Amino acid sequence: MVQFLAAHLDASFAALSDATRRGVLEQLGRADASITELADAFCMTLTGMKKHVGVLERAGLVTTQKVGRVRTCKLGRSMLAEETAWIEEYRRLWSSRFDALDQVVEELKQRETFDGRRSTE
Amino acid sequence: MVQFLAAHLDASFAALSDATRRGVLEQLGRADASITELADAFCMTLTGMKKHVGVLERAGLVTTQKVGRVRTCKLGRSMLAEETAWIEEYRRLWSSRFDALDQVVEELKQRETFDGRRSTE
Repeated sequence: MVQFLAAHLDASFAALSDATRRGVLEQLGRADASITELADAFCMTLTGMKKHVGVLERAGLVTTQKVGRVRTCKLGRSMLAEETAWIEEYRRLWSSRFDALDQVVEELKQRETFDGRRSTE
Repeated sequence: MVQFLAAHLDASFAALSDATRRGVLEQLGRADASITELADAFCMTLTGMKKHVGVLERAGLVTTQKVGRVRTCKLGRSMLAEETAWIEEYRRLWSSRFDALDQVVEELKQRETFDGRRSTE
């Protein structure tokens, strides 16, 4: 399960690591589109767009359906729930680390003030 | 600005697309660590770990400092705020797309019921 989740996160974060692929997801969030329409919208060859859609499809972010000669793309089932959970947990860790650092700095400041007072007494 | 943000998102999502790198961030969220300690913890060569830390460093997720012969790694300044914002916007789009789909299905069901009633009248 952990390994499956790790592979799933690998695939989806990799899919999100390209501006065109993020753009395709934003576009499909507004309306379904054929590969040709997506290629036109992003000034790209059909082959290039097919590759990007393939990466998104393998990550569960897009599904495609071919009717006749047209392959239509729509958003997949992944709502990026696990990715959101991972990032939220990271942000929680990050905050607690920096809160702890703030506390150390505060303690050092107070000690300095205390030492300063003692040296002037 | 938009291009800078796109490049930033490319780098950080790519940095997150590897289980070892996510593990390193989790580890540094608990305590700072040297490259050697990280390499040991993930059963990896020093060279391999240096590469992973380099990717995290370029994405602003880790900072390193060399004192003597030891390079210590700590969490960087990026709290993944832009990445969270992008994913949240995507989830909002996703929900509204699927809500709209639910509404279409509901309307089709109601029409079927209505047509069914008419045909039995």
